[in-house]
Amino acid sequence: MAARKSISKSKSDSNQSRSLNKLPTKRASGKNNGKVHTIGSYLIQRLEDYGLSDLFGIPGDFVLQFYGMLEESPIRVIGTTREDNAGYAADGYARVNGLGAVCVTYCVGGLSLCNSIAGAYAEKSPVIVISGAPGMSERETDPLLHHRVKDFHTQRDVFEKITVATALLDDPITAFQEIDRCLEACVKYKRPVYLELPRDCVHKEAVIPHIPNDKQPTSNKHALRESLVEAAELIQAAKKPVIIAGVEVHRFGLREEVLKFAEKHKIPMCATILGKSVVSESHPLYLGVYEGAMGRNEVQRYVEDSDCVILLGTFMTDINLGIYTAHLDPGKCIYATSEKLRISYHHFHDVIFSDFVHELGKQKMKVVVRKIPEKVRPHAVDYVVKPTKLVTTKHLFESINQILSDETVVVTDVGDCLFGAVDLMISTHTKFLSPAYYTSMGFAIPASLGAQVANQDLRPIVLVGDGAFQMTCLELSTALKLGFNPIVIVLNNKGYTTERFLQEGPFNDIPDWKYHNITDLIGGGWGFEVSTEGDLEKAIKAALANKDSLSVINVHLEPTDVSPALTRLADKMSKSL
Amino acid sequence: MAARKSISKSKSDSNQSRSLNKLPTKRASGKNNGKVHTIGSYLIQRLEDYGLSDLFGIPGDFVLQFYGMLEESPIRVIGTTREDNAGYAADGYARVNGLGAVCVTYCVGGLSLCNSIAGAYAEKSPVIVISGAPGMSERETDPLLHHRVKDFHTQRDVFEKITVATALLDDPITAFQEIDRCLEACVKYKRPVYLELPRDCVHKEAVIPHIPNDKQPTSNKHALRESLVEAAELIQAAKKPVIIAGVEVHRFGLREEVLKFAEKHKIPMCATILGKSVVSESHPLYLGVYEGAMGRNEVQRYVEDSDCVILLGTFMTDINLGIYTAHLDPGKCIYATSEKLRISYHHFHDVIFSDFVHELGKQKMKVVVRKIPEKVRPHAVDYVVKPTKLVTTKHLFESINQILSDETVVVTDVGDCLFGAVDLMISTHTKFLSPAYYTSMGFAIPASLGAQVANQDLRPIVLVGDGAFQMTCLELSTALKLGFNPIVIVLNNKGYTTERFLQEGPFNDIPDWKYHNITDLIGGGWGFEVSTEGDLEKAIKAALANKDSLSVINVHLEPTDVSPALTRLADKMSKSL
Repeated sequence: MAARKSISKSKSDSNQSRSLNKLPTKRASGKNNGKVHTIGSYLIQRLEDYGLSDLFGIPGDFVLQFYGMLEESPIRVIGTTREDNAGYAADGYARVNGLGAVCVTYCVGGLSLCNSIAGAYAEKSPVIVISGAPGMSERETDPLLHHRVKDFHTQRDVFEKITVATALLDDPITAFQEIDRCLEACVKYKRPVYLELPRDCVHKEAVIPHIPNDKQPTSNKHALRESLVEAAELIQAAKKPVIIAGVEVHRFGLREEVLKFAEKHKIPMCATILGKSVVSESHPLYLGVYEGAMGRNEVQRYVEDSDCVILLGTFMTDINLGIYTAHLDPGKCIYATSEKLRISYHHFHDVIFSDFVHELGKQKMKVVVRKIPEKVRPHAVDYVVKPTKLVTTKHLFESINQILSDETVVVTDVGDCLFGAVDLMISTHTKFLSPAYYTSMGFAIPASLGAQVANQDLRPIVLVGDGAFQMTCLELSTALKLGFNPIVIVLNNKGYTTERFLQEGPFNDIPDWKYHNITDLIGGGWGFEVSTEGDLEKAIKAALANKDSLSVINVHLEPTDVSPALTRLADKMSKSL
Repeated sequence: MAARKSISKSKSDSNQSRSLNKLPTKRASGKNNGKVHTIGSYLIQRLEDYGLSDLFGIPGDFVLQFYGMLEESPIRVIGTTREDNAGYAADGYARVNGLGAVCVTYCVGGLSLCNSIAGAYAEKSPVIVISGAPGMSERETDPLLHHRVKDFHTQRDVFEKITVATALLDDPITAFQEIDRCLEACVKYKRPVYLELPRDCVHKEAVIPHIPNDKQPTSNKHALRESLVEAAELIQAAKKPVIIAGVEVHRFGLREEVLKFAEKHKIPMCATILGKSVVSESHPLYLGVYEGAMGRNEVQRYVEDSDCVILLGTFMTDINLGIYTAHLDPGKCIYATSEKLRISYHHFHDVIFSDFVHELGKQKMKVVVRKIPEKVRPHAVDYVVKPTKLVTTKHLFESINQILSDETVVVTDVGDCLFGAVDLMISTHTKFLSPAYYTSMGFAIPASLGAQVANQDLRPIVLVGDGAFQMTCLELSTALKLGFNPIVIVLNNKGYTTERFLQEGPFNDIPDWKYHNITDLIGGGWGFEVSTEGDLEKAIKAALANKDSLSVINVHLEPTDVSPALTRLADKMSKSL
């Protein structure tokens, strides 16, 4: 299928940004090329309307009819090795494209998605789960069909717990509205939804003409006005305001508006680790990642000394707050997200996040020039290679920093590769993806596949621990099949290093694989084994030159060696004891 | 840890059989070596009481305290590469040992188990899921702790849907009873249960002395008596009775009793594919697998001509019924399982399955000698190797049949490796494991690990398709770490072959890996690539000789070549159209 359908889609930067605030680009009609829509064809039509070009999944007998229909559609189906990886890939795709989808079979497929979809829920990544299911006529005598667990409701019941909306598309009277309702919820809340499509319903035709309802929700205008007046007054009066831009600024396509607002009022900006790269880290107003003790000291001090902290689209998670080493005074905060708007200790209800950000930019405020101390801004590090010196985690991150460009997207996994990445300098916005709240090991490799499917011009630099590599490395097979060229850097510290600091035990040791030899198994790509700084330099150079295929760099590290960010956290925590 | 704790446990056969009907072997006292029990220590004590020596899992910060406690206990923790594989391994372990357990961290760990635990539910494999969780004191202000999805109930809510009992062990007043209740349910229903252990509750001490309640449920004696009288009359009057022994005969440890009953009354026996090998397939009364058109014609005819079919512990699933090509007349059936007892068209409630089987054996019936036509019994196939001939699926299964012995356990995955296995001859009971109802791809490799952990003297012969291998092959790393010697045979037909018959499309093609090279990645084991019958013979010989390590045999097959069983099914279905 990959060979048949073109996968070129070098979207311009601005297009890509706009596409994140997904609205249907055209209204689906009740007709499908002159024919009456079926439930299956309407679903495909709406996915296209929302700008979806690709989806991920694995076929199975209960979803084969719909796979057959997808095959005839403009949507490309990317087969993965496992369903959970399809979920991660759809999540990575959604983070770049603004919407993602995964299509699997009943229970053995769907229930394999629980963890990756739960992660998309937690981190607000809009992923549509489509699951095939036994036909309604097959269910009549309540038989023990294969793949069944308790009853025919089980899978939907499970997904009720980890999505914002679910629907069973079992009736042409309701299915078309249900598709609309779920897709709208996905885009509105930036969270996964679940659609269950019984195999005998795929070809069921609409019985009445269906026109989608594209009505958009609106803010309570009084609450909006009052909140804006108060916010503007506070910001104008502040001596040292600062913006913390979170991941929702990206998810709701508000990056440009936040940037313009900051530039107009000369307000410095930070990001959270989950929202890292939501604005370019080389922007003159950018200070760095605010993450309590895990971020740089200067950034923490600047933010916590501020008399007006404007948090936009930021989740107050434990990791974003540097495992609670952050200390923000709510009385000095304007806190706006898609879920709440709070100024100091009072809340405004029914104010839509994007309305607030949009209107805030239009408020008349005196422009105050505020000087940002130079030492607060990110500073360059002298980068020196000592060829025979063993590679440390610190040196590894410095080396990675040298190769980042407008064409790369950093995708990190969990553990010290996430913490260490806080110090990377991402010069173009939206070039950093990580599971920094849900922190599910194994995210990075399949998510990087999804990111590259969404934008083939991006070259993923994948940072992954050895434990995470062991979980999902085989998805590199799909990158190979598609001719993708990620550079996968394995931080091989022989175990679950971040856990060693909490409770040491033999359960933290894992077998030391020859990670670079994965290329022998999947039948392609380049592998490198690295111990010294000289090895590393050569391997990175060769990997960069290997533009037509994937590269895996197995970097041997000491089991107890950690990144500067984790060192900072440990220092701070030991001092506070 | 593996090195520290002895893993020798060559149980005698009869011990193993008895252990399947798990009851606590000793009563836990309120004391733990003279100290008051904590929630964590009591849980470990009860696992030991129920005969659990090993559990599977991956640590994470919310479960590290309990991992630390396990490390000090006699229970061995087997680290796996992924949580879902830990679930499959615990399932495989439970099928051999009678009870299994898996221990993981919150959400990223637990929700990764959904599919493998759902499979254990569907196929009645008693697996205890233990999940670490955020401490109760950490939850007070409802913070966004990492790994959290919707709220702190989400994970338990999900497991409510795929287990028979769940408990949150958050209070020392209730936790001890809750542990008892869930473990009892696991053993009684042979289905998974879920225990959530907040990390600040692991070391909480009992506040009142706790004595476990070991009261056993009893049958309604009137219903039991009436059902037995009727069953005995029907069996005695029957000219051609036949027993179909299902998987529950194994799960409830009733194999010996069923066998004695059959032998006493000279009643021939069949198995289902899910229950295959519940009795030795070389037993003179054994006819074969009854599975509609997928089984042998002679067996189907014998069973469907019978005037009294005694179904014991059999699930009437679509695959057990040969995708509904089986035709059993309920009016001629005695159907007893742990969930229902039905004779002809009437039901008896409150009759415990094991009571029925036990008492049926004691009924006084005239012994009638009934001759079994020789041609119905499994017949030997002339096995010839033509060295240069390309291997077919048929030949592959005949070759596998040659190497089965009392020391081997066949573990099959899903697809044609399951269907083809119907014709294998398993001479010792309980030497065949498969996910023949839930049919989750990827089961076999991790389940074979669990089987060998449960009984190290078993040598797994693992039959796996290429698609399934791509899902869970990396768990061979754990087999390597433990010095295990499974022989993994990859039916490499370049895609999802059984789906090709339902709907052909490029989505059924998968990349052709060098499966035998997995040994280069994980750093050990022997790999073989096979195309001809001669290659296969040599590879199998070498693998058998390689007793100290695992072997992977990559067998190239034509994408459309299928087993005799699948051919039989296709023939029958085409004739009925």
